[in-house]
Parts: sequence; C-alpha cells; structure tokens
Amino acid sequence: MSNSLDKKDFQILFGKQLEKFRTAKNLSYRQLAQRCDLDHSDISKIEKGETNIQLSSVLQLSKGLNIHPSELFNFEFHLDKE
Amino acid sequence: MSNSLDKKDFQILFGKQLEKFRTAKNLSYRQLAQRCDLDHSDISKIEKGETNIQLSSVLQLSKGLNIHPSELFNFEFHLDKE
Repeated sequence: MSNSLDKKDFQILFGKQLEKFRTAKNLSYRQLAQRCDLDHSDISKIEKGETNIQLSSVLQLSKGLNIHPSELFNFEFHLDKE
Repeated sequence: MSNSLDKKDFQILFGKQLEKFRTAKNLSYRQLAQRCDLDHSDISKIEKGETNIQLSSVLQLSKGLNIHPSELFNFEFHLDKE
C-alpha cells in the first residue's frame, strides 16, 4: 500500500480548507453556491472530500470566496505520509 | 461577455506554471509523466491549457515535481480582468 498521500486524503484536506474559508466569510452552502454558479449540494460534497473537482470549479470557488486559488491549496500536508 | 477571468485563461495560466516548474527541474514531458503516472501527451495538453484537470492530477503533478500543490497555483492573476 503506497504510503504517500492519496487522492482521497487530498480531497478531504481541500474540502476542509474550503469549509474554513466559507465559514470564515459567514457564507452558507447556498450563499456560496449562488456566488459560484455551483449547486449547494456540490459544495457540501466537495467539503466532505467526496468530489474530485476540476480546475474550473477551483476557479469558481475562489471567485465566490474572492480569494486567490492558491489559498484553497494552502494547507499543511506532506507529499509522503510520515 | 463576462469580463472576469474565465476557465480557459485559468487553464492556460496553470499550464504555464506547470511548464515553469518542469523546465526548472530539467524534466522532459516523458520524465515528468513517468513520475506522475500520467501520459506524456497529457502533460503537453495541460501545459497548453487544453485540459480541465482534476484535483487528483494536481496531486500527481505536485508529487512528480516534489512541490506543494499551492505552488502550482502561485501565479499572478486577478479574479476580475482589468
């Protein structure tokens, strides 16, 4: 079993980062969804790490949150799990 | 026509950033592809902004380049084009 960070871990970390920004801006799923042209259920799935989103959604989310996309990836993790 | 940065612009900027890191590490398409479990033609398409890649490919590319994924998004752009 490869000990490096896998796809699912990465999606979960990304989802937590998204939730952090959404709640910091006091936005509900619905409010963020309206700003991003995404469905509110999409936002919930992304935050739970259930969706392998594409660059276009990364751009939509960063626009909706008015942050630079790199901030959505600014979470702590090591490419190889200790 | 919305004047904000659109999906295609974003893919192109991401592709240029990828190319910058790949060439800085003196890796050919094939060499990077081997490290990432992607096809070398995928790398070329991504660099030309032709592919709306998913988070899993972002993770693969950052592993192959041994950089944090946020660095792949560390390019200058404004959410709304001036």
